[in-house]
Amino acid sequence: MIQTYSHDRPFRLESGVELPSLEIAYNTYGTMNSDRSNVVWVCHALTANSDVADWWPHTVETGCFLDPAKWFVVCANILGSHYGTTGPLSVNPATGTPYYGDFPDFTIRDMVAVHRVLADALGIGRIHALVGSSVGGFQAVEWAVDEPERFDKLVLIATAPVATPWAIAIDETQRMAIEADPTYGERRPDAAMAGLAAARAIGLLTYRGGEGYNLTQRESEPGKLLPRAAHRPCSYQQYQGLKLCRRYNAYSYVKILDAFDTHDVGRSRGGLEKALSRISAQTMTVGITTDMIFPPAEMRRLAAAIPGAAYEELASDFGHDGFLVEHQRLNDILTKFL
Amino acid sequence: MIQTYSHDRPFRLESGVELPSLEIAYNTYGTMNSDRSNVVWVCHALTANSDVADWWPHTVETGCFLDPAKWFVVCANILGSHYGTTGPLSVNPATGTPYYGDFPDFTIRDMVAVHRVLADALGIGRIHALVGSSVGGFQAVEWAVDEPERFDKLVLIATAPVATPWAIAIDETQRMAIEADPTYGERRPDAAMAGLAAARAIGLLTYRGGEGYNLTQRESEPGKLLPRAAHRPCSYQQYQGLKLCRRYNAYSYVKILDAFDTHDVGRSRGGLEKALSRISAQTMTVGITTDMIFPPAEMRRLAAAIPGAAYEELASDFGHDGFLVEHQRLNDILTKFL
Repeated sequence: MIQTYSHDRPFRLESGVELPSLEIAYNTYGTMNSDRSNVVWVCHALTANSDVADWWPHTVETGCFLDPAKWFVVCANILGSHYGTTGPLSVNPATGTPYYGDFPDFTIRDMVAVHRVLADALGIGRIHALVGSSVGGFQAVEWAVDEPERFDKLVLIATAPVATPWAIAIDETQRMAIEADPTYGERRPDAAMAGLAAARAIGLLTYRGGEGYNLTQRESEPGKLLPRAAHRPCSYQQYQGLKLCRRYNAYSYVKILDAFDTHDVGRSRGGLEKALSRISAQTMTVGITTDMIFPPAEMRRLAAAIPGAAYEELASDFGHDGFLVEHQRLNDILTKFL
Repeated sequence: MIQTYSHDRPFRLESGVELPSLEIAYNTYGTMNSDRSNVVWVCHALTANSDVADWWPHTVETGCFLDPAKWFVVCANILGSHYGTTGPLSVNPATGTPYYGDFPDFTIRDMVAVHRVLADALGIGRIHALVGSSVGGFQAVEWAVDEPERFDKLVLIATAPVATPWAIAIDETQRMAIEADPTYGERRPDAAMAGLAAARAIGLLTYRGGEGYNLTQRESEPGKLLPRAAHRPCSYQQYQGLKLCRRYNAYSYVKILDAFDTHDVGRSRGGLEKALSRISAQTMTVGITTDMIFPPAEMRRLAAAIPGAAYEELASDFGHDGFLVEHQRLNDILTKFL
């Protein structure tokens, strides 16, 4: 069940800008044990939310690696998101209307700082395991570098310690699609829906990759001359775009992409290697063979830079989305590790 | 120098729709020899044009594989393109105004039929070599299947015999970006420029790929917290989008993407394998190690399906664009082959 913590004090962003207060929406599963030693903190990705059981199938279940009978699982909605934590659709107390595009820029470090506010509010000190995939992994690796002593274990799946030029180019392209829709900027929650749909379609290309599309979107009538809309991959892209529009807003999307691009655990810490060497948690990294955003070679480099980190590779045809699809193998790896 | 052939008769498209006449813009380099045995026909890709020497550096030069002292090189602007061959910006005789979005749908086979019209007009019968990369390769493989007896040699670089679901999904995503711009549909040549820029940025992601971006678009100030526009990959995507807008139009772009999606040499020919087995030209196929649109594994499958075809692999960090970048190695392979 989703809950909300209201933090009625100013919250200072990395940029120096202050939010007058914070709302943090979060989910928990299971029960914290008496010595508070069973906390597993999950960080969610781009357009997901705090309901891990909803977006990460077969993980928060008996016998799975986030088994709620064993662990007290916590996931907070990220700063700027659509799902309850303070973001572009929140009311700006200074104006009495939603921020929309005026919501201040924030960083992955700000997302982590919000997680820390919630952890303190919940009375959580030491965290047994911190788990993040994709942009969730950005938060996890940032937090593990920031407070190394807080975590026993760290799990980084299909992620990176710094936003690469390639990943930033993907983000920029999505923003270009959103901004091609001139309703972006209009002060309403459903501004730039056509742009957001196109942006999501771009994202999907990079999440699924060639193998994924070629396996699942084969034409139903091969050998026929089809009009555009009758091509299966076309209706799929349109459908996925629409699906996001029904549940998300373009302002949160752009602001979180902006935050994505700021990701660099090495910033003001003497560079990447030095920052990653601070991690003291026992670390498991997981790469996906067909992930084009965070390719295995880069995941192996990340593992090599974290003291004592292990690396496992998930064989999948579903690209970056493999971490959502290959839950059985992921459970095998992570149940043992946690 | 660009020339134009006016074909003042109706031209029937695969759909059955007729264009009342055709203009075909083309370039030639070198001189046809007396027995007309030195013709090399080059098919260009998506937004390129008939000036091969312009878009394919170090190919139409002394000692290179399109050496104009040796070969009579012909390249025609493709049907629907921006550069002189009949397309969306041409005047529709029925209305006295440009077609824009009303230009009829066409296919890769229609592009090839237009090439045949030009070849006949130029008195070209047998063609020594037919060369195509990317969408140029779509035309080349289609033509070689359609008229196998016409060609001595066939060169297929970074291309495919059928548009895969993955490639179609990429195209659809680009169209979604263009259509997110509501000026698409307005009857002017510069309609949907913001959408076209975003579409081009999408295309570029798929042409260059991760290695390409990570090599060339590294941040100039690593470790700094940068605003969005200061990220190098962001300005690069914006710049590339603008650059296409200065030289192209959204209607041609969409119509050619639509044609791309119709590509299937197996259509009405008993399927892919059977169609490809008709090719009698001596064939060289070239794949690029990092090409995410036409990956090496698929290029090898194409080679295996063409009787006696050879396969060479170009090692490149520049993805699909490798065929434009790695001209030295390409010249080595193709000078020998031609």
